[in-house]
Amino acid sequence: MSDNITKISMERIDDHVNFQATNTTGNSILMDGSEAIGGKGNGVRPMETLLMGVAGCSSIDIVLILQKMKQDLLDIKVEVTATTIKVEDAKEYDTIHVHYDLYGPLKESKVEKAINLSLEKYCSVSKMLEAKSSITSSFKIHSK
Amino acid sequence: MSDNITKISMERIDDHVNFQATNTTGNSILMDGSEAIGGKGNGVRPMETLLMGVAGCSSIDIVLILQKMKQDLLDIKVEVTATTIKVEDAKEYDTIHVHYDLYGPLKESKVEKAINLSLEKYCSVSKMLEAKSSITSSFKIHSK
Repeated sequence: MSDNITKISMERIDDHVNFQATNTTGNSILMDGSEAIGGKGNGVRPMETLLMGVAGCSSIDIVLILQKMKQDLLDIKVEVTATTIKVEDAKEYDTIHVHYDLYGPLKESKVEKAINLSLEKYCSVSKMLEAKSSITSSFKIHSK
Repeated sequence: MSDNITKISMERIDDHVNFQATNTTGNSILMDGSEAIGGKGNGVRPMETLLMGVAGCSSIDIVLILQKMKQDLLDIKVEVTATTIKVEDAKEYDTIHVHYDLYGPLKESKVEKAINLSLEKYCSVSKMLEAKSSITSSFKIHSK
């Protein structure tokens, strides 16, 4: 497949609103609607996938940037909190806040630079979403 | 949690770029970077989650709208194909095409209306992404 084509497929896994989406290498995620409309409650909501994408995309960047900076990142955990507003008949995230907990003997200035480089420059997911959402970040270093 | 707050968390599952993201009801997805940078190849890519979100979000709408229209939808399968362009240092989807295969004795005009209502009006994920991407759709009805 061409480098600039991305493809996914999705199947319904019951008679209601429960779905399995799969990428071209065969890896899947489960998604569903709320239980009120027939969701089984074992998948993630479609709108949540966007926040997961921001967390994943930026963390990949941050891991790689800190490696290049010779920073010994032992672990990273992320929390994303978003607020929605109603825009006509849909809901959009108006704010997305990404908080990073980073573990290891890390220099604060390097961590700050890595996070900013990702969210402002390299992370394709945040670049996609920033048209509609104000994306902010915070971090805490756990040095031992 | 307030209705207009969405929250997800994410942990790293090894020393490289492999992550597990979890929603507030405990459902998870695996995400990773490419194998070249340390991905294990058992997760989805962060940018793929956006396309999965469009597929999931619009299919939930379509299932519910066709139910309201008394259309007997037996199954639905979706393929999403997107093209990326380089925008400065990131990649963005410039086009996203969503193809729906719908199974059952369905009226073409109703299916077309359901798809358009979702992508143009109700699907929050497509509303989020349409700022950067041109989103198009097609469908095929398999009536037996």
